[in-house]
Amino acid sequence: MEKIIAPKGYRYAATASGIKGDGKTDLGLIVSDIPAQCAGVFTRNRVVAAPLQITRPRIARGKCQAILVNSGNANACTGEAGLRVAESCSDLVAEALALPSELVAVASTGVIGQPLSLAPFQAAVFGLGVALDEQHAAAVAEAIMTTDSYAKISELKVEGVGYSYRILGLAKGAGMIHPNMATMLGFVMTDAKLTATQLQRLLKPAVDNSFNSISVDGDTSTNDMVLLLANGAAGGVEIEPGSQEEEQFAKKLQVVLLDLAKMIVRDGEGATKLAEIKVIGGQNVQQARTIARAVATSSLVKTAFFGEDANWGRIIAAVGYAGVEIEPEKIDILFDEVMVARGGLYVGTQIEKPATAVLKQSEFCVTIDLHQGDSFASYFTSDLTFDYVRINADYRS
Amino acid sequence: MEKIIAPKGYRYAATASGIKGDGKTDLGLIVSDIPAQCAGVFTRNRVVAAPLQITRPRIARGKCQAILVNSGNANACTGEAGLRVAESCSDLVAEALALPSELVAVASTGVIGQPLSLAPFQAAVFGLGVALDEQHAAAVAEAIMTTDSYAKISELKVEGVGYSYRILGLAKGAGMIHPNMATMLGFVMTDAKLTATQLQRLLKPAVDNSFNSISVDGDTSTNDMVLLLANGAAGGVEIEPGSQEEEQFAKKLQVVLLDLAKMIVRDGEGATKLAEIKVIGGQNVQQARTIARAVATSSLVKTAFFGEDANWGRIIAAVGYAGVEIEPEKIDILFDEVMVARGGLYVGTQIEKPATAVLKQSEFCVTIDLHQGDSFASYFTSDLTFDYVRINADYRS
Repeated sequence: MEKIIAPKGYRYAATASGIKGDGKTDLGLIVSDIPAQCAGVFTRNRVVAAPLQITRPRIARGKCQAILVNSGNANACTGEAGLRVAESCSDLVAEALALPSELVAVASTGVIGQPLSLAPFQAAVFGLGVALDEQHAAAVAEAIMTTDSYAKISELKVEGVGYSYRILGLAKGAGMIHPNMATMLGFVMTDAKLTATQLQRLLKPAVDNSFNSISVDGDTSTNDMVLLLANGAAGGVEIEPGSQEEEQFAKKLQVVLLDLAKMIVRDGEGATKLAEIKVIGGQNVQQARTIARAVATSSLVKTAFFGEDANWGRIIAAVGYAGVEIEPEKIDILFDEVMVARGGLYVGTQIEKPATAVLKQSEFCVTIDLHQGDSFASYFTSDLTFDYVRINADYRS
Repeated sequence: MEKIIAPKGYRYAATASGIKGDGKTDLGLIVSDIPAQCAGVFTRNRVVAAPLQITRPRIARGKCQAILVNSGNANACTGEAGLRVAESCSDLVAEALALPSELVAVASTGVIGQPLSLAPFQAAVFGLGVALDEQHAAAVAEAIMTTDSYAKISELKVEGVGYSYRILGLAKGAGMIHPNMATMLGFVMTDAKLTATQLQRLLKPAVDNSFNSISVDGDTSTNDMVLLLANGAAGGVEIEPGSQEEEQFAKKLQVVLLDLAKMIVRDGEGATKLAEIKVIGGQNVQQARTIARAVATSSLVKTAFFGEDANWGRIIAAVGYAGVEIEPEKIDILFDEVMVARGGLYVGTQIEKPATAVLKQSEFCVTIDLHQGDSFASYFTSDLTFDYVRINADYRS
């Protein structure tokens, strides 16, 4: 298991509680030595899973000390009973660690609409509390995997003024996944010192430019959640709002989240390619984002990537139906450095060979220049493959 | 070739002009004996192909006598040169039939972004004019096929007061298709007597509830076009606005268009199943439509249909991310008559067998009851299969 040099003052534990039924680890616990300042971003799906209903108001109060997360069952569409289970889970953690329940966040990922039993939690949570250790962050990242083929971990060290701090992110994903093992989860721990208000202000844009800028299949889960904890254990002074240090923290946070987001796309079901859809020359960011999203979620564009087909017609068609104003006769399209369309027109057969060579790579960038302004936005997407259909069709068979 | 009893006063011809390059028919001509009243609905894509730019303003003037349609090349993203070719095509028809060019509509379907040569049209159009015949409607339906596996034709006879008239629809589709053989095209001819204003008023809702309520892959083409011609050749009086006769015409028009739309879904690339996504109990039609569309275009829902997996969690998740207000705890979901979720909760394992049996059929209905009001809307969709990926990835290989 990967050795992680984690932020100070956090401990981790994971176990196989039996929720998954296949003997794999399915329950993880993250604990800060002291109550941490916190922020969260939650799913925009109107159907909200039970753990989010418990956790969201707690995070909104700005303090969190423990996160309990299970895979194997999403505890979504489970009604009052599901809410009671989620609440009881946090009570179990509170009891085991002698904390108030209000400082415990709970998260789940797995099948939607199946009752979640409290029994595995009753059997496992106390032991998790005992097993907590600074070295086990990677074990938590593994315990939250569903169809993920590898654990997603990103960390970096930041040199602050007179001291250094760390940011560690653990994630799973992507999109809605077999068998409804939906859900993008992200947990980010830092030992820098910031307030909950600051964290919330910085987390939202960082999530927008990372987890909210990826598309594997365009679906959004009932359980998506990103939590950010800052416990100040690195020492050093509090990072001031509006300071250069805060800007530095925001940038590094963005790096960690984008790193995790790209891992999620690369590990998308059946994916063989990672493509950045970069819209530049936009009138405003909203326009650029909307277009990038339309292209990144087009089944035909994603299938063409799989076929390594430099099919710019599908791209400009997706630009056209994005539903925002464009001037088609101004649009340039490039595959990496190869311009395939200029001013909305095909450049010519000479681009076919170099453009196809770009698509044969496992990572490439499609640039769409609107020539309408200075705004830009990127979306990261995968190809749509036979394996996507196989993985998602085979459930229960 | 199917024998069609067509509306009176229309003649048809089709030929292999060489645009397709594989020797298949690729050019069709539809001509009314007298200038017909007409209406049209065109793509909402911001990228609009050349033939639409020529045809749309002509149809808006309310009179049309001839429609020239080619497959094999969409004449889209072809700039000024493409516009000149589209205009020249209509001039060739006008010359061959001694009509003003303003009465000629042109339509194209095929590859986007490739220059369209005028030469095949110069060679073929005069001959098409000579070959015109009342019996050849099916040949036109075949000439506009791209990846369609069969020609799409629907016709019916309506008993008017003291006379009868007919409605004949020809279509191709669906969605954006290999190799960019995009485009939903529909041409509807009737020998009933109505004004262009009436036709336009009646065509829009009929298209909304048919061609605009199907989803094969969610993409919208640069070339989509539905034209409706009425030449009054059946005799009988003009159908009065607001009359029972007009209502009857609207209903029958809807039947023809929905029939064609379902054929398009059934023939969707790789499709093996036709599913109606029916949202009932909505607050308003817009809400019901938005939700039906989100479910019908979800890759995960469509893949689950292919896998015959009664995966209602994916359906309620799509309902949740549709972006409109819902009350999840009120929602019922049925597969045909089998209720799988009641009040947002799983009914229980006893539904698995009968629900799976529903999905094993080639056609079924998923009903989503929002229990918020009386509005409803339907969307028709196909499953997402290995063959969809194969067909759409293999282009140029």
